[in-house]
Amino acid sequence: MPHDARIDALRLALVSGVGPRAWQQLIAAFGSPTRVLEAMPSELEAVDGIGPKLSQAIARARHEIDAADVFVTCEREAIDVLLAGESGYPASLREIPDPPGVLYCRGAIEPRDALAVAIVGSRHASLYGTSQAERLSGSLARAGFTIISGLARGIDAAAHRAALQAGGRTIAVLGSGLLNIYPPEHAELAKDIAASGAVLSEAPLRMGPHRTLFPQRNRLISGLARGVIVIEASLKSGALITARHAMEQNRDVFAVPGRVDNHLSQGCHRLIRDGAKLIESADDVLEELGPLTRPVPLSEGETIHQPVEVTLNDLERQVLQTIDTSPTLVDQIITKSELPATQVLSTLTILEMRKLIRRTSGMHYVRL
Amino acid sequence: MPHDARIDALRLALVSGVGPRAWQQLIAAFGSPTRVLEAMPSELEAVDGIGPKLSQAIARARHEIDAADVFVTCEREAIDVLLAGESGYPASLREIPDPPGVLYCRGAIEPRDALAVAIVGSRHASLYGTSQAERLSGSLARAGFTIISGLARGIDAAAHRAALQAGGRTIAVLGSGLLNIYPPEHAELAKDIAASGAVLSEAPLRMGPHRTLFPQRNRLISGLARGVIVIEASLKSGALITARHAMEQNRDVFAVPGRVDNHLSQGCHRLIRDGAKLIESADDVLEELGPLTRPVPLSEGETIHQPVEVTLNDLERQVLQTIDTSPTLVDQIITKSELPATQVLSTLTILEMRKLIRRTSGMHYVRL
Repeated sequence: MPHDARIDALRLALVSGVGPRAWQQLIAAFGSPTRVLEAMPSELEAVDGIGPKLSQAIARARHEIDAADVFVTCEREAIDVLLAGESGYPASLREIPDPPGVLYCRGAIEPRDALAVAIVGSRHASLYGTSQAERLSGSLARAGFTIISGLARGIDAAAHRAALQAGGRTIAVLGSGLLNIYPPEHAELAKDIAASGAVLSEAPLRMGPHRTLFPQRNRLISGLARGVIVIEASLKSGALITARHAMEQNRDVFAVPGRVDNHLSQGCHRLIRDGAKLIESADDVLEELGPLTRPVPLSEGETIHQPVEVTLNDLERQVLQTIDTSPTLVDQIITKSELPATQVLSTLTILEMRKLIRRTSGMHYVRL
Repeated sequence: MPHDARIDALRLALVSGVGPRAWQQLIAAFGSPTRVLEAMPSELEAVDGIGPKLSQAIARARHEIDAADVFVTCEREAIDVLLAGESGYPASLREIPDPPGVLYCRGAIEPRDALAVAIVGSRHASLYGTSQAERLSGSLARAGFTIISGLARGIDAAAHRAALQAGGRTIAVLGSGLLNIYPPEHAELAKDIAASGAVLSEAPLRMGPHRTLFPQRNRLISGLARGVIVIEASLKSGALITARHAMEQNRDVFAVPGRVDNHLSQGCHRLIRDGAKLIESADDVLEELGPLTRPVPLSEGETIHQPVEVTLNDLERQVLQTIDTSPTLVDQIITKSELPATQVLSTLTILEMRKLIRRTSGMHYVRL
């Protein structure tokens, strides 16, 4: 997108009242942010949900909103502006019903972040909750998953920290602007996260935390992940909102049970009764996670098609990587894998049993 | 049943090798225990599953097994012999695939015991487990449920004791004979149970505890109950066998979750994953319990049609008891309940919402 077009995109996003839904409808109607900003108020009002007040704010945006200045600030602060439709924008958010038009990003989103799970829960977590968050986050991060959470106190912070300690990747999605980290004591943590992942927000840079922003923000936490793990949540916890978003976005929902006399487990228990999967370990998550929308490059020369592939041993991975999504001849698999034929054949059986490959006609296999 | 027939029934049950299945098939083929004992070995062998060894043991039973002596012992020990088909035999066991031909009973089984739940779990329960067993058993016993369990250490004993402390009824089903209480330190508890319910066994009076008997016994624990609650069970716990019996017998299965780092919760978590209902309280059980096969007389003048009725307040019960399973006129309900019309009408609305009654044509209600 050329520079002027990017400025217009940011300008439109900064118009007060242009949320994800309005953004989507305006772009659908006019084709681009620039065209939206050039439209007459009467034309804008022809769009469903755009009233006179909003149409006039949009028409005035060219004169009133200095988006170029925001770009300058972003450059100075090492913040990237990710615009919907551009290549740097997270692919997984394109699947959700209301992706933000603009995302501010400190750090970097990588293709491998498509293999992600969210870990969320109470800000007032118990020691049990934080230790489970650490255990699950560490295991999943080591397995190659990016851990998504909300930088809040309690479960969120424990999940981010454990992912960092495991040498893995983690992404924090804020409910405030990137230049207004909340809670303030997590400013250092946010820096560490940006260095091993990304800190994201759809809120303007200096926007303060506001309770109405958090439920909105939660749809991005679930939207960025293949599944959401809830660890300790009271019945009023925002984590239950994230879980609801996850269900609407066709993401898996996992809940960690606890003692029935711990009120922080009640939210998890309700989720389980409502159909969330009860999990005890990272393996439970891997076994249940649905297939990826598209293959994810995990490391050099290795591409993940299904989350459970991260549990394979080196030999199994080596053989799997030689098999294509179009039928591959066994001889070819043996040659490419550079392994003894007997070892390849027994490994093929294992991969077939784990439903990662399927034997097609005679001596051919395809990757699923 | 005349006395000789009763002796023959007990004699047949005492033949080594005549288990519940063989008993059922023999009775189906010959009509009565007496006729079975009079049959020729060749006739007996025509029955599916009866081999030459068993047929000869049955043919010899008249001469070798002194069932009359067992009756004498039972009378001396205040033990009743309940025979399948007789009126004192528990009605709920008639619904299971393999009811025992004979049950030894100390104490008494009452019609109200048809409103029963089983509470089972680990013999090595933690304080969390026993306190949950006490809480649930106490609440359900107070609500009018008979608590069924297996007299074992841990969860079983906690459930029996809490039911007794609540002034409720409880039934223990043993894996050993009634004159060989196991574990021995529960002899006193067994006495208390017999005084406020019953101690039952299908095993001969002096049979010692044997591991092979317990899985068999477990089908009676679930069979006597409308639902089975599992509280703390390792993955190898016998409680999981009871839960499996419950599913096969079309009983509800409930499981209490716990911390994922407590191995005694793993069995419960597996059950929940396999479809058991996660429960936190007695109310959760009452809401989920399926309808009773037939109405249960709970106390004088009060009959329970659905387990959840025990949660009604006095006013609601009073109104409900005036409504028949055939359409009852509102005027009649008002007259019988001896309450102000406005109070009756608002209570009818509540009972209808709770799906305990249904309004039929115009001014008639039926009890569901």
